[in-house]
Amino acid sequence: MTVDELKYPGSRRIYVPGALFPDIKVAMREVTLSDSVFPDGTTESNDPVRIYDCSGPWGDAEFHGQAEQGLPRMREEWILSRGDVCRDAGGALQATDLKQAPTQREYARRGIITPEMEYVAIRENLGREAAFKAIYDQFPSAKSRPEQAQQLLDELGTGMPRPSELEAQPGFSPKSLERRSQLHYQHPAEQRGGNIPAFFTPEFVRDEIAAGRALIPVNINHPEAEPMIIGRNFLCKINANIGNSAITSGIEEEVEKLRWAIHWGADTVMDLSTGKDIHKTREWILRNSPVPIGTVPMYQSLEKCSGRVEHLSWPIFRDTLIEQARQGVDYVTVHAALLERFVYHTANRATGIVSRGGSIIAKWMMIHKQENFLYTHWDEICDILATYDVAISIGDGLRPGSIADANDFAQLAELEVQGELTRRAWDKGVQVMNEGPGHVPLHLVPENMRKQLEWCYEAPFYTLGPLATDIAPGYDHITGALGGAIIAQRGCAMLCYVTRKEHLGLPDKEDVREGVVTYKLAAHAADLAKGHPGAQLRDNALAKARFEFRWEDQFNLSLDPHKARSYHDLTLPHANAKQAHFCSMCGPDFCAMKLTQEIRNSDRE
Amino acid sequence: MTVDELKYPGSRRIYVPGALFPDIKVAMREVTLSDSVFPDGTTESNDPVRIYDCSGPWGDAEFHGQAEQGLPRMREEWILSRGDVCRDAGGALQATDLKQAPTQREYARRGIITPEMEYVAIRENLGREAAFKAIYDQFPSAKSRPEQAQQLLDELGTGMPRPSELEAQPGFSPKSLERRSQLHYQHPAEQRGGNIPAFFTPEFVRDEIAAGRALIPVNINHPEAEPMIIGRNFLCKINANIGNSAITSGIEEEVEKLRWAIHWGADTVMDLSTGKDIHKTREWILRNSPVPIGTVPMYQSLEKCSGRVEHLSWPIFRDTLIEQARQGVDYVTVHAALLERFVYHTANRATGIVSRGGSIIAKWMMIHKQENFLYTHWDEICDILATYDVAISIGDGLRPGSIADANDFAQLAELEVQGELTRRAWDKGVQVMNEGPGHVPLHLVPENMRKQLEWCYEAPFYTLGPLATDIAPGYDHITGALGGAIIAQRGCAMLCYVTRKEHLGLPDKEDVREGVVTYKLAAHAADLAKGHPGAQLRDNALAKARFEFRWEDQFNLSLDPHKARSYHDLTLPHANAKQAHFCSMCGPDFCAMKLTQEIRNSDRE
Repeated sequence: MTVDELKYPGSRRIYVPGALFPDIKVAMREVTLSDSVFPDGTTESNDPVRIYDCSGPWGDAEFHGQAEQGLPRMREEWILSRGDVCRDAGGALQATDLKQAPTQREYARRGIITPEMEYVAIRENLGREAAFKAIYDQFPSAKSRPEQAQQLLDELGTGMPRPSELEAQPGFSPKSLERRSQLHYQHPAEQRGGNIPAFFTPEFVRDEIAAGRALIPVNINHPEAEPMIIGRNFLCKINANIGNSAITSGIEEEVEKLRWAIHWGADTVMDLSTGKDIHKTREWILRNSPVPIGTVPMYQSLEKCSGRVEHLSWPIFRDTLIEQARQGVDYVTVHAALLERFVYHTANRATGIVSRGGSIIAKWMMIHKQENFLYTHWDEICDILATYDVAISIGDGLRPGSIADANDFAQLAELEVQGELTRRAWDKGVQVMNEGPGHVPLHLVPENMRKQLEWCYEAPFYTLGPLATDIAPGYDHITGALGGAIIAQRGCAMLCYVTRKEHLGLPDKEDVREGVVTYKLAAHAADLAKGHPGAQLRDNALAKARFEFRWEDQFNLSLDPHKARSYHDLTLPHANAKQAHFCSMCGPDFCAMKLTQEIRNSDRE
Repeated sequence: MTVDELKYPGSRRIYVPGALFPDIKVAMREVTLSDSVFPDGTTESNDPVRIYDCSGPWGDAEFHGQAEQGLPRMREEWILSRGDVCRDAGGALQATDLKQAPTQREYARRGIITPEMEYVAIRENLGREAAFKAIYDQFPSAKSRPEQAQQLLDELGTGMPRPSELEAQPGFSPKSLERRSQLHYQHPAEQRGGNIPAFFTPEFVRDEIAAGRALIPVNINHPEAEPMIIGRNFLCKINANIGNSAITSGIEEEVEKLRWAIHWGADTVMDLSTGKDIHKTREWILRNSPVPIGTVPMYQSLEKCSGRVEHLSWPIFRDTLIEQARQGVDYVTVHAALLERFVYHTANRATGIVSRGGSIIAKWMMIHKQENFLYTHWDEICDILATYDVAISIGDGLRPGSIADANDFAQLAELEVQGELTRRAWDKGVQVMNEGPGHVPLHLVPENMRKQLEWCYEAPFYTLGPLATDIAPGYDHITGALGGAIIAQRGCAMLCYVTRKEHLGLPDKEDVREGVVTYKLAAHAADLAKGHPGAQLRDNALAKARFEFRWEDQFNLSLDPHKARSYHDLTLPHANAKQAHFCSMCGPDFCAMKLTQEIRNSDRE
């Protein structure tokens, strides 16, 4: 199945305009719902639900672009209008003057709100403005009292009051309004030291970026990308890895892989290609990607040395970094915190070093008996990144590769250095996040988050899993989601997905789909727990559809409508089963929800 | 694929004898491992790993029984020799005198250790005695100093010391011994109020049962069952549901379903059949089940009323309960804590009542305007259960069916009554556990466990998930595993699995397999976190096999060897790839573990 065959059913693309920057159009997916039908035959409409959507133009049915042309360069005008960049000899954009680096961090520090910042603020609000307006339109008294309405809006931000509370307020009484309001109910949050506002404003976004608690990875040479924010006080994001195979495929195939991952919900994509046509593959990916693209430049550097680690050098790495930055890579993983003296501490580990980048640089240090050149050239690396607003993802080359190695000296020693490098990158205006484990038993997960926040000054954490056990190869998307949900609940900003093929082989499309959806659900579970405003609306709407046996709506609101529908249709394929008040799991006589409906109906009589 | 085609590769059945009861033979699965091969060509053997195995005679290659004959009646002699039961007119065993009910709880209260108790103690030790003996055989000085050896054994129970600590002890020095010992390393536990000993003894089991913190659900009329313990200070157990379809299948098909679930690791199985041949189906299942079988007797009661809830009555339920108890059902779910006055509190819920048993009794109360007859006849129910040592699983008919309804008044009101009923059942000598939710966001999960422990006097908790979000139909085995791992880490004793077809349709065999394995890994992740002694050995052994590229061992030690192998073989199917020092995920040039091996080797030179 190709991504073009996979349109989300019952959905349409909408755009929410900016206020500070009216030209901004933030894309969202709106799911249209069918009416509720009551036993007496009356019906009631259900408000559409707006869903976070980073599929870019590819997700717009009106868009008919081709992979060869690349996506529209949406951000180009924003970038050029700031007047702080120029073109180099090869035509790539770069900073005119590094004292005023064209990074979102620099702008934030100077108090400037960029279109990128307003864009992500609107996105993170999940279209709630419109949802609330639908309620207020039925509540005339609020309109005439804007202050009271604003106050209520503030309350709504953290969770709609229970219907009983609403009833106590003047004007709130009709049943239908009550039911609509109930959909916005959200459990009180458990923010664990986080600071998620009731409503996201561009000012809040700016302040989070200035504090280093969040980043928007958007290279000035990747104008096709939509801005996306990563930080613990925002929706938890997920990354999917793709990479070309040894025998290089065509442009359509590479772009298809990218679009496939984004379709299922990947917020960023890392291109981990290690084959021969790394540069060309990356070009196709960048020109067609509406999401930030990350890379590990060491892989291409090693390819340039024909895989001979001993031939690696700072100049080769530097040139590769510049090449990728000029091309438009939005963030790069650099294993600069793995110091020479730490390698010794992996000798007694159960599984040594399991990071590819980490093992490459460790081997280089062993051969040359020199300090990590990524560490010794850190300032130069940061200058390069600041020139193009490439964000840095400081790698964890010594992350544990087994439960036994979790939270050991080598891992934590590297984390401390990640903190030092974070500070130094910030001072250069570079946006930063830190990478984290790996394999960690559940009870040692919180320590990882705690130490990272403390040692890395609250820079966003970006973890691989963590995988909660080693004994489930073939199911490691799930072992990783267990640790991932727990660490995201405590403030991890982005989860790198793990597929079920992890440790076993190269994932195919179905593995990517399972992996992305599994991490989306883990991230969403964490967003519910940390109280992201509006996160629960989708759960509430789906639960209501389920309870009212609106099967199509239940499918359409789910993370994977195609799978939900196909599972249902395996036993009840006929169209009229979509109206049935039971499914094959319990059958008509034993359906609890059907019985409950009967109880409620008899209560009405 | 049938279960007979699914033998665990590289495994053999072993039996560990009892000490108090030498006739006891506790079944375990032993995975034989291949040798480690070092770069200099030398090799070293790897101790076999013993794995918890409740597949009974079906898991023994020497056993060639047929479904028609049923399993050997292993416990019959134990039961009869206690001299406190007699046969009723129909030939079923029952208590001779209810003042001395033949329940494991009664025995424990009187200070008696039964063969069942020693059996589960041996099982929970996961064959570590033998593993330690293999170490001690190489440590002659310990043998001559039994006290010191015992002290060390105590230490080993909670996790083997790090090699450096071992080296400080006299006699510990050879490299091979060090590597062997390292396999027994376990992270310090986080018991969160639990009390897991370093080593399980029959005395400990007895005391936990007497305190009500654990139960062994074994009906005196189900002598085919192997004893299995459920309690927060033991391995977390998982339950799989099966049920016959509307068109009844043959005996082979029903037994196949049972064996399939047990093969993948289900510790107990609930027969939720609702079709016409409930009694006969259950007979086939019981006579062929080595694990405890649970039921919801209300389902059969309703079948006897042809699905007419209004015709239900205490006599019908009572007779059904006796029928099932005489047949050998080991535990029953009874929704006795759902009181009439609570039903009103579900009226404003997003998803009302979602428990089948709960909705049936709620509808009965609405029709008859009477209190729940399961509650008003509780003492009689307990007397019946005590007569046959049927354990009670007090149902949670008002568990939340959506995130919105989590931890609401109706749910918690019922939990309080579960506590009251727990006490009363204990007073009758009945073994008890409590059922729990349901759909709960991650941050509200701990409150469920805390309140249950407090209000239900530490009786074992048995939860369905909890599912951490509503938006992932088709992936609800995973949403349930997220909440399940967290609540099990905090002391939940048993998790009821959820399949990916939940909310959508009837699971097939592949769904059961995915569901059971997913819950096994969640339960195991919790066991690692709560520090079950020896739990980490399997992770360590698998990690070592992975690091040494012993692919076959990695597959054989995993929860689903067949899937792990098939995923690997999709890209590298040839036999010689099983010796390759890389897989298709990263390829030979970018394999971090291969690079680490090279670093270690160059270090040796």
